[in-house]
Amino acid sequence: MHQYIVNASIQILPVVQDRHPYEWVDEAIAIIQNAGIKYEIGPFATVVEGTYEEVMKVINAVNEHLFNRHCNEWITSIQLQIRSGGDITGDEKVEKFR
Amino acid sequence: MHQYIVNASIQILPVVQDRHPYEWVDEAIAIIQNAGIKYEIGPFATVVEGTYEEVMKVINAVNEHLFNRHCNEWITSIQLQIRSGGDITGDEKVEKFR
Amino acid sequence: MHQYIVNASIQILPVVQDRHPYEWVDEAIAIIQNAGIKYEIGPFATVVEGTYEEVMKVINAVNEHLFNRHCNEWITSIQLQIRSGGDITGDEKVEKFR
Amino acid sequence: MHQYIVNASIQILPVVQDRHPYEWVDEAIAIIQNAGIKYEIGPFATVVEGTYEEVMKVINAVNEHLFNRHCNEWITSIQLQIRSGGDITGDEKVEKFR
Repeated sequence: MHQYIVNASIQILPVVQDRHPYEWVDEAIAIIQNAGIKYEIGPFATVVEGTYEEVMKVINAVNEHLFNRHCNEWITSIQLQIRSGGDITGDEKVEKFR
Repeated sequence: MHQYIVNASIQILPVVQDRHPYEWVDEAIAIIQNAGIKYEIGPFATVVEGTYEEVMKVINAVNEHLFNRHCNEWITSIQLQIRSGGDITGDEKVEKFR
Repeated sequence: MHQYIVNASIQILPVVQDRHPYEWVDEAIAIIQNAGIKYEIGPFATVVEGTYEEVMKVINAVNEHLFNRHCNEWITSIQLQIRSGGDITGDEKVEKFR
Repeated sequence: MHQYIVNASIQILPVVQDRHPYEWVDEAIAIIQNAGIKYEIGPFATVVEGTYEEVMKVINAVNEHLFNRHCNEWITSIQLQIRSGGDITGDEKVEKFR
């Protein structure tokens, strides 16, 4: 895979009863916040930016965290937007509207 | 259904070859911008807020527009977040992070 | 909107602690099963087919049911696939693979 | 991460004009078909099963293929369902309905 910037949205949907699902969501967001790549927290998902490798590393770190913390069950919903010949950033998609 | 605030994310994924897919996305966003309910445009989707009825009306208006404009084919990806006993807003979900 | 067949996938993600989330999912699926349009239950979502009006009526019926039954909070994830000039069916998309 | 079975749905949404988007979808499905893990092709996504490592390897292989084949731009939509203490299979979620 290339080293261009890819753009991804990450949403965690816990399937649990022991804690309020949002508590797991907050833990997942904290992992993303500390991952060292650009992120924007939205109402439904957190959008991150980095190389493909960097983004997949963050996705794996979130799932690894939830596993190590014994979150009973969860769905990680991901959208990865990739351009084969160049960068694709969040700003490029929204700046004309902001 | 109740009259509380619901929260929804709307993403349009055109399946076309005649125009660049983003052109259809921009038209869909314009429909949302003119619908008169609160919205926030993000890199993957536009998040709207309103009563269930208001939000479904916007979703229908977007699909109606794409149909009337002869967009060949598209996927409308929607996440509707609803609380049966009260409002659920975008701000409530992100303010502690902003 | 036209009267052609549209294709939609419906996924219910309860945000609850009082019951196992799957119990709400099963109730939502039962609403779809009794709605009188074609459906296929998959591991992540139930795919339905019908006119736009019929499909939106089922989506509304599911949300109405969860509201009337006091499901605390849920996300309805929907993908609506629409072709402006004709039908789009599930079979058309998978028959060459089955 | 554990070695239990996880369950994932993979959907490819090409953002292209040079070929019909379905042609890229078919290529992605062929990669999944040849990956050696259990899969079920549905109207909106292909559901796969395997260990977390096996599933992520397939997701990476699909993206790698599209990159090597110069697909201009695409969104890979993924839902990963993971249980920290055991397997989660597609059958478990649908068998009572089939």
